[in-house]
Amino acid sequence: MLEQARTFIETMYQELQYEPQAISKRIHEIEREINERDTYSHTSEELKYGAKMAWRNSNRCIGRFFWETLHVIDARDIRTEQAFINSIEHHIKFATNDGKIKPCITIYSAEDPPTIYNNQLIRYAGYVEKGDPAEQEVTQLAHHLGWSGGYTDFDILPLIYRCPNGSMKYHEYNSNIIKEVPITHDKFPKLKSLNLKWYAVPIISNMDLKIGGITYPTAPFNGWYMVNEIAVRNFTDSYRYNLLEKVAAAFEFDTLKNNSFNKDRTLVELNDAVYQSFKNEGVSIVDHLTASKQFERFESNEHKQHRTVTGKWSWLAPSLSPTLVSNYHHGYDNTMREPNFFYKKRGTSGCPFH
Amino acid sequence: MLEQARTFIETMYQELQYEPQAISKRIHEIEREINERDTYSHTSEELKYGAKMAWRNSNRCIGRFFWETLHVIDARDIRTEQAFINSIEHHIKFATNDGKIKPCITIYSAEDPPTIYNNQLIRYAGYVEKGDPAEQEVTQLAHHLGWSGGYTDFDILPLIYRCPNGSMKYHEYNSNIIKEVPITHDKFPKLKSLNLKWYAVPIISNMDLKIGGITYPTAPFNGWYMVNEIAVRNFTDSYRYNLLEKVAAAFEFDTLKNNSFNKDRTLVELNDAVYQSFKNEGVSIVDHLTASKQFERFESNEHKQHRTVTGKWSWLAPSLSPTLVSNYHHGYDNTMREPNFFYKKRGTSGCPFH
Repeated sequence: MLEQARTFIETMYQELQYEPQAISKRIHEIEREINERDTYSHTSEELKYGAKMAWRNSNRCIGRFFWETLHVIDARDIRTEQAFINSIEHHIKFATNDGKIKPCITIYSAEDPPTIYNNQLIRYAGYVEKGDPAEQEVTQLAHHLGWSGGYTDFDILPLIYRCPNGSMKYHEYNSNIIKEVPITHDKFPKLKSLNLKWYAVPIISNMDLKIGGITYPTAPFNGWYMVNEIAVRNFTDSYRYNLLEKVAAAFEFDTLKNNSFNKDRTLVELNDAVYQSFKNEGVSIVDHLTASKQFERFESNEHKQHRTVTGKWSWLAPSLSPTLVSNYHHGYDNTMREPNFFYKKRGTSGCPFH
Repeated sequence: MLEQARTFIETMYQELQYEPQAISKRIHEIEREINERDTYSHTSEELKYGAKMAWRNSNRCIGRFFWETLHVIDARDIRTEQAFINSIEHHIKFATNDGKIKPCITIYSAEDPPTIYNNQLIRYAGYVEKGDPAEQEVTQLAHHLGWSGGYTDFDILPLIYRCPNGSMKYHEYNSNIIKEVPITHDKFPKLKSLNLKWYAVPIISNMDLKIGGITYPTAPFNGWYMVNEIAVRNFTDSYRYNLLEKVAAAFEFDTLKNNSFNKDRTLVELNDAVYQSFKNEGVSIVDHLTASKQFERFESNEHKQHRTVTGKWSWLAPSLSPTLVSNYHHGYDNTMREPNFFYKKRGTSGCPFH
């Protein structure tokens, strides 16, 4: 732990141009603390900068241009159940910001953390033949705890949590804090009749945050959506909402034969629909081409700082028209640096294969 | 070499259900031959099956369902320049087959091979600001040898070769053996005015074929095109023909702003155009969704034979709408098995990064 702490402190303090004496003083402090109680505490500044570095090091994330803008909420001192729930609802409201989404992370105690069982704070329930299949396990957990949804395709799952020394419970959010966007397309009005919608803010809650040898097991964080995540992966992956055929029918494509290219057309129009819909509701979203341009600027900023960029090619190449962006035509070094976010073993979101 | 030979012979002979005695007899034979002259010769059957196995083991190839149909031409005994050129033109004619393309490989001597300097037997020249940028190096080589093209975007490069003990030369193909397809789109008639075309048969000529410890440095081979190779990579990659904007203008899209999704639409329609055009000319081509289905059948066939399938995910996921195919949602083991094809160090085609 001391080695990891030392590496983190040296890196952070050098980036922030602290004096060498300040660095060695802080490392000695940490060393004493580790000798005393087998762990150490980050200062508020270390926590904040460490969380930002974790975003900067997230190999799968195409949105890292904005890493320095992360709003970090230090919730390490939260101990009561009510304060925990309030802080989660505060995160949702703060991040949503009436549509102008703010990247945000809330970091709970490393030593005595509440546990969150959701993959994301906001997510739709998955039932047999309804809802989001990726959430069937969490939905079953919610049912075990006595929750029941409306059995629609878009039931917001409750927060499932356990406070230290408490039992596992669920909490239904105050519904007025959850922003959702109905999906329409100005050129294909029939799409509206499918009553598709999606929530505004993706707040990942199944990853560990590791900073300088300390693991924060509960540290939900969000950016805003890139359009393909919703339109391609969530709506059309066959093991998710699997909507390609229904949407194509609403678009009145006459055939879905492979060589008609209508599946491809449906995908493009559905992306356009999701993008338009978010914009019409004033909710932040980014298209894949702009996101990739921003990633190029991130790479260039990093090079200016004499830092190399690590990345995971299969995630940085968007799922729509991947060759149109420069990421596709690069190689990336997928070394996992720390600070970083790590999937918990129980985590099931994202594709584990690549 | 003996170890590699042994592995190949055992694998091949077992797959073909030869008796164990036949296997050990053949291995002893090879052992004696290697002891005598430091190498050995494949039987015609070994050469043919080995080449098919090399295709089966090609991790980047989505078309492997057809591996057993490869037509193998044993050209190991070709020694004269004229015979060599005839055999190359024969390959082109045989593989083209008036449009009904036949997968084919011509294998020259391992010990005393002619050298081919082209990346593919048929390819368009690349000049400053014209033609295929990927072929600028080969084009310069052709110029050095005295060739000059018509300085159009689609000048067929000559064969550049060297026979053993000869000098480097070029040979212009008899133009009536090269089938090309003009690119049109039934719904976007203005596309025709761009005068785009592409050749029918991709015949890779910059890879070594390795079978059982023997390297065949000259073994051009072909399948047929998957539509995205032409429409996405060759036509729209910014470091290739870079045609996205011109094609979008011909399609009369009014904006190419990232969030208009018109770049994505242009890409889909250009794929449709290339596909339609090949079909209209009676030339074999496969769309990405069908190719992926065929790959699934290949995987299932291999599993039935108790063989595992290796693959390179970044190549098996098509460059158009990759999530619509099952390959995207798998992991692949990218172990390189032999027999296989290997890029020569001088080879520049394909993306070296992934």
